[in-house]
Amino acid sequence: MFYHVKELQYHAKPERPDPIYAKKLQEVLGGQFGEISVALQYLFQGWSFRGDEKYRDLLMDTGTEELAHIEMLSTMIARLLDGAPVGDLEEAAKDPVLGAILGGMNPQHAIVSGLGAMPVDSVGNPWTASYINASGNLLADFRMNLTYESQGRLQAVRLYEMTNDRGVKDMLSFLIARDTMHQNMWKAAIAELEAQENIVVPSTFPRELEKQEVSYAFFNLSRGEESSQGRWASGPSMDRMGQFTYVAEPYPFAKKPKLNPPPPYTHNTMLPKTPRHQPPSMY
Amino acid sequence: MFYHVKELQYHAKPERPDPIYAKKLQEVLGGQFGEISVALQYLFQGWSFRGDEKYRDLLMDTGTEELAHIEMLSTMIARLLDGAPVGDLEEAAKDPVLGAILGGMNPQHAIVSGLGAMPVDSVGNPWTASYINASGNLLADFRMNLTYESQGRLQAVRLYEMTNDRGVKDMLSFLIARDTMHQNMWKAAIAELEAQENIVVPSTFPRELEKQEVSYAFFNLSRGEESSQGRWASGPSMDRMGQFTYVAEPYPFAKKPKLNPPPPYTHNTMLPKTPRHQPPSMY
Amino acid sequence: MFYHVKELQYHAKPERPDPIYAKKLQEVLGGQFGEISVALQYLFQGWSFRGDEKYRDLLMDTGTEELAHIEMLSTMIARLLDGAPVGDLEEAAKDPVLGAILGGMNPQHAIVSGLGAMPVDSVGNPWTASYINASGNLLADFRMNLTYESQGRLQAVRLYEMTNDRGVKDMLSFLIARDTMHQNMWKAAIAELEAQENIVVPSTFPRELEKQEVSYAFFNLSRGEESSQGRWASGPSMDRMGQFTYVAEPYPFAKKPKLNPPPPYTHNTMLPKTPRHQPPSMY
Amino acid sequence: MFYHVKELQYHAKPERPDPIYAKKLQEVLGGQFGEISVALQYLFQGWSFRGDEKYRDLLMDTGTEELAHIEMLSTMIARLLDGAPVGDLEEAAKDPVLGAILGGMNPQHAIVSGLGAMPVDSVGNPWTASYINASGNLLADFRMNLTYESQGRLQAVRLYEMTNDRGVKDMLSFLIARDTMHQNMWKAAIAELEAQENIVVPSTFPRELEKQEVSYAFFNLSRGEESSQGRWASGPSMDRMGQFTYVAEPYPFAKKPKLNPPPPYTHNTMLPKTPRHQPPSMY
Amino acid sequence: MFYHVKELQYHAKPERPDPIYAKKLQEVLGGQFGEISVALQYLFQGWSFRGDEKYRDLLMDTGTEELAHIEMLSTMIARLLDGAPVGDLEEAAKDPVLGAILGGMNPQHAIVSGLGAMPVDSVGNPWTASYINASGNLLADFRMNLTYESQGRLQAVRLYEMTNDRGVKDMLSFLIARDTMHQNMWKAAIAELEAQENIVVPSTFPRELEKQEVSYAFFNLSRGEESSQGRWASGPSMDRMGQFTYVAEPYPFAKKPKLNPPPPYTHNTMLPKTPRHQPPSMY
Amino acid sequence: MFYHVKELQYHAKPERPDPIYAKKLQEVLGGQFGEISVALQYLFQGWSFRGDEKYRDLLMDTGTEELAHIEMLSTMIARLLDGAPVGDLEEAAKDPVLGAILGGMNPQHAIVSGLGAMPVDSVGNPWTASYINASGNLLADFRMNLTYESQGRLQAVRLYEMTNDRGVKDMLSFLIARDTMHQNMWKAAIAELEAQENIVVPSTFPRELEKQEVSYAFFNLSRGEESSQGRWASGPSMDRMGQFTYVAEPYPFAKKPKLNPPPPYTHNTMLPKTPRHQPPSMY
Repeated sequence: MFYHVKELQYHAKPERPDPIYAKKLQEVLGGQFGEISVALQYLFQGWSFRGDEKYRDLLMDTGTEELAHIEMLSTMIARLLDGAPVGDLEEAAKDPVLGAILGGMNPQHAIVSGLGAMPVDSVGNPWTASYINASGNLLADFRMNLTYESQGRLQAVRLYEMTNDRGVKDMLSFLIARDTMHQNMWKAAIAELEAQENIVVPSTFPRELEKQEVSYAFFNLSRGEESSQGRWASGPSMDRMGQFTYVAEPYPFAKKPKLNPPPPYTHNTMLPKTPRHQPPSMY
Repeated sequence: MFYHVKELQYHAKPERPDPIYAKKLQEVLGGQFGEISVALQYLFQGWSFRGDEKYRDLLMDTGTEELAHIEMLSTMIARLLDGAPVGDLEEAAKDPVLGAILGGMNPQHAIVSGLGAMPVDSVGNPWTASYINASGNLLADFRMNLTYESQGRLQAVRLYEMTNDRGVKDMLSFLIARDTMHQNMWKAAIAELEAQENIVVPSTFPRELEKQEVSYAFFNLSRGEESSQGRWASGPSMDRMGQFTYVAEPYPFAKKPKLNPPPPYTHNTMLPKTPRHQPPSMY
Repeated sequence: MFYHVKELQYHAKPERPDPIYAKKLQEVLGGQFGEISVALQYLFQGWSFRGDEKYRDLLMDTGTEELAHIEMLSTMIARLLDGAPVGDLEEAAKDPVLGAILGGMNPQHAIVSGLGAMPVDSVGNPWTASYINASGNLLADFRMNLTYESQGRLQAVRLYEMTNDRGVKDMLSFLIARDTMHQNMWKAAIAELEAQENIVVPSTFPRELEKQEVSYAFFNLSRGEESSQGRWASGPSMDRMGQFTYVAEPYPFAKKPKLNPPPPYTHNTMLPKTPRHQPPSMY
Repeated sequence: MFYHVKELQYHAKPERPDPIYAKKLQEVLGGQFGEISVALQYLFQGWSFRGDEKYRDLLMDTGTEELAHIEMLSTMIARLLDGAPVGDLEEAAKDPVLGAILGGMNPQHAIVSGLGAMPVDSVGNPWTASYINASGNLLADFRMNLTYESQGRLQAVRLYEMTNDRGVKDMLSFLIARDTMHQNMWKAAIAELEAQENIVVPSTFPRELEKQEVSYAFFNLSRGEESSQGRWASGPSMDRMGQFTYVAEPYPFAKKPKLNPPPPYTHNTMLPKTPRHQPPSMY
Repeated sequence: MFYHVKELQYHAKPERPDPIYAKKLQEVLGGQFGEISVALQYLFQGWSFRGDEKYRDLLMDTGTEELAHIEMLSTMIARLLDGAPVGDLEEAAKDPVLGAILGGMNPQHAIVSGLGAMPVDSVGNPWTASYINASGNLLADFRMNLTYESQGRLQAVRLYEMTNDRGVKDMLSFLIARDTMHQNMWKAAIAELEAQENIVVPSTFPRELEKQEVSYAFFNLSRGEESSQGRWASGPSMDRMGQFTYVAEPYPFAKKPKLNPPPPYTHNTMLPKTPRHQPPSMY
Repeated sequence: MFYHVKELQYHAKPERPDPIYAKKLQEVLGGQFGEISVALQYLFQGWSFRGDEKYRDLLMDTGTEELAHIEMLSTMIARLLDGAPVGDLEEAAKDPVLGAILGGMNPQHAIVSGLGAMPVDSVGNPWTASYINASGNLLADFRMNLTYESQGRLQAVRLYEMTNDRGVKDMLSFLIARDTMHQNMWKAAIAELEAQENIVVPSTFPRELEKQEVSYAFFNLSRGEESSQGRWASGPSMDRMGQFTYVAEPYPFAKKPKLNPPPPYTHNTMLPKTPRHQPPSMY
């Protein structure tokens, strides 16, 4: 169960309105790696986790913080949209700055949300739950979380470069710092799990059931052998259970497949001579 | 540029048809972490990469292999659908096995694809490019790739548990082994990059520009302190640039926000007394 | 069954082309609350309604009118796109007006639709049937319809503010008037139903089966008690079946949940000691 | 900013697992009118609201409660999935109950989420932000909120009818009661706003600017005059600003439209004689 | 502008309810090639067409008919859902037929639509406007229309095979016949256009501007030369403007690409030595 | 199984960067009719085809070529994005060209992909597998393929008109030529199939089972008889199995439908008198 306090976790006040930057900032609110994604991903992972209380608490602590980041970004975006001009663009274009604003802002900020933040990305795609996952396997999920904090911090840094508004930069400096912590945190949690299990997810599948002759082989399928120079091409494997090998000329293990002809009731093409109508299989 | 040979990379022949398993197997073909996702993710990362040829080659080698996995799964699914019954379910339900098959298979395999594989997941959601990403930052992207191989192997292992068809299990044992390799491989590539940069993505953003007092602080926002027992709550940070601290009672840094009133031309609610129509800002 | 006449329900002729306004106007054609939404929502509600002929006719009358609005907007948008310039934007940018047009119009109007309207919103998201609903419960559905006419009229009014083209304003004045009627109409239909049933949907669920101690309680979950000043915080409930109460300090009714451990065949994380491979449950 | 306590707002414990019911219950978690929708809709409306603190607090109080409902449903669904069987369906079909379970459950609950709840509806569509809206106009938005509580309670009642598990029914009796409150609450808030403004949204658009001759006219566009018997067909309009009229034989106000021919650079069809290639307009 | 009559274009009455068949029949209502797709595709093509009245009328005639097909299918699906059982599946599974029905029907038909048709396909994906197109080029669009009638009739025929309900078969025999007409019709319209233009769309692009040495060359990129046996591999091209050639061993025309390094402000990976922070380009 | 060579099939080098054109060019990469669509459509059709090796090879040859086109476009787009400016738009707007670039480019090219191509269209919608199909019926599918090559070439031609960069035009002249070939090729393959079967898909459904009195009738449902002037309105049908007829005043074949009342457990509206709660059907 949740409680809300009206104070923001951190300041979210720009020096001046900037409707076009508002459109861009939507990326880290409602984009693939935005705050809605991390909030709901961590919370769903926490609610579904069937194990050690410590990890569940970690997920709930962090998911709850991300809700505060959604709030900060929503507030900032509303303020960046303050008094955004509307009106005839052709007219406005006579003033280059006004024209650029009218032409470049997200029209839904004016027409749909009435100058409020929206759960969409920087081109207006609505946020979708297909961005996120909770698998029940913590190592798989913590890797996903580390990924989201990595991509998210990268985007926040790029957005930091795109403005000289000190208020916006101040807020981003906070979010970037939290992403630093969260990358460190998931990295630490991953280290704990890898120490207990192994690096290969899931660690509980018996290795003898997999086709072990290809478990550490690198297949050179794009002509040119530059890829042979990496750590993945030779030496002990990272899970310490095998040796990397480099297969310079990989070949197929199987033959050309030949599918059975379709049953008549599918009315697929059946060449050269197509049988005419036959009753479906079950009558 | 690509060339195709008709041989499959590995065998894809079930012992017998099983249309319901065909539906489930779609997950690792057209689902979030399926083969379409990894193929296109690696290829797009390769095509966009603006740097070291070794990493580009690595991405193209692996993306090209994943195309072969799409092909294997498509072939397997077509064969699992061989001669799938169609017809009246109520009638069929008198035979429990036939009823279960008709009720449980994906109806689009009969109506839409004519007993062929589809680019959809196990509940029929079409594959979407919003699953994938190529950011230009290799460390961020390789973490995403490691995630996809982790979640993908987990799903392949779960599917392995759900059948006793030796042909299916044989194919999955190959794919699971390749996921073992690919987890090892991305892990190795990540190790190389982390050794050169740092663990925090992106490594090129000056740390003094971020709000460093919260860069290593854990905020306990879900009541109960189980999360204090993890590696992330104390000791040196994973990037060796700070000390983890545990903030048992985190508080807001900012005040309650107050947004400016809306301009009249948005026709937002303006209480208590709502001004009537005013001309928009620019006339 | 439908018949079409080629005359438009109302004029749809702008004074002059305006490709950027065409992009914006797409919102009320193919957006969440646009004409495609109301047309298909009312028609599906009508086709599925299992009751009083009067309401079915109401739905079919209105759904059929909305098809004419799709037509008017499609015609207007095609005319706003008349002779829209294409070409090199960098070149065009030397003429600020031309640059603003090229930079601000929806590129798909040039590349995809050949200067025709599209079933998309003002940022280009395709219309989706997930916008609409027909539940079979008229009171629930008429409330949804009233909502759509409210949001739709709001957007039409905002678009009215954004142009000074008298032809566009004339067409919008017609659509806004129809939204006035339709809000009045759904309001009237809702009043009829509420008089017969009650205001709580569905009215047919026995109240003694719900947890009645919380049926009229307001929970103050965001710190600060400004919300206690509303009509919803005290006095008789709107359905006249209870008294509103204000719970200033709401607490949980249940304990902390503890989920059962996962079965081995899911390969979820099972800490501290993870059992190794076990056969799935049913063999 | 948010705080979380681990206690659930209300009990979420079924008498026994039921993986198929788990699939169905997803509708009120991740469906169009599910708890994710209301939580995020109310929170976004609150964060963007530029006015009276009372309404903002109302939105934040209620949005925060809905987060607790997401949590309850996620917990319930995980428990309904407890120890769900996996395995060969054809084999299982010999036991009709087991066959029905395997055939009827959402396969992603086994393959993707490892027996956890997912942010999807009862057929597996991922939740999308295109379900929700925050327009800045409170009356429009509160009508949307009333709609969501109406449709949501209807679905919860239908789900109540579909089980005889006393634990599930107990939790639903709580959620249904909260929906009773929330319908009453939005109804009360709407009454307040309508008393101050008018029933037509937005109330701030000058009526003389709309095409008033059609502001209260009902158009009988589906043959048959059953719709003339409703409150909307005669008498004073609900906004008390006009008289409803019934137009039994509505006719078009405008002529057949004729679009201008396409410019050559679109390569649209131009019949009867198609001009050959011409340079685009701007060179 | 449209008018509606309440009579159906053709009978839509099943012999008996069949909720599982209702789910399947959704494919030709709300699927990719269903009636919503053809109705809106033809209408949008008509509304946007900037030319010969004859073709515009053809499109409006046919789009208007397809609206009647949506209506017939919606009616049929509602009747197939008549009195569909709801309740505990585990209980029901004791009666195999009842169990099959409960397990196999679309749960949203019970929970969401109250036994009405929905704008979704046979697995529950909502209809999306990304299925359709209107390009302004009639030959391109008529080919799309012929495709939709071809895929649509195929699906209707497959559904015909899946039932022995004479009422359903009767309705499908009508829809299949209309698809016969519509395939003939688009074929005829295409023949008219191809006679005036050429078979290559668009016919107005000067051939000398395309890379003509590859305009009729077949590239054998999948090893094995079975494809050389087709009409496309030799002889005069279908547009009578060239000769087909078969390139047995196609090679690249260009060199290996090398992308420029990324600018520092993108924080992409820049190996081997990564420059540290630099100001973005424009300050 | 696939092999990759690093050489491009054709040159993909612009004369100069142009980030706005990069956004537009995305249409033919990740749009509805872009290269991802044709590549995956042909490959899925090939993998699922259950018949004549010649057609399977044709599909694999061509699908493999389309992968090379994805690669060319990705390379071109990355180069068009070379060194794209980022920064404050308001500042930039003082230089009209810079302002136009910043306002008009896809912000995700800067924030998300780090100046790389993305699998999205020209307004940023992610590519979705709902664009494509493989039905198992070759004639239906080849018509779909011809459609995609027609719409694709039309878009490529329109893009050719929108630039004067000789490098871009050179690449497009290659892609347009390949589309010329592919239209000719599918046309040739269709001719082969139509010669063997008939023009109506599927050809295997017995004509006596369809409602033959409407198999060749044109229904004039949009008032005005311009459509009577087409080839489709009189004369022998294209399949040579009937005569086209023009029905100037089409009427319904069926009566007004009346649906049965809803069962109580759906809690649909049941007027005039609504029964109260009744147990669901199966207990």
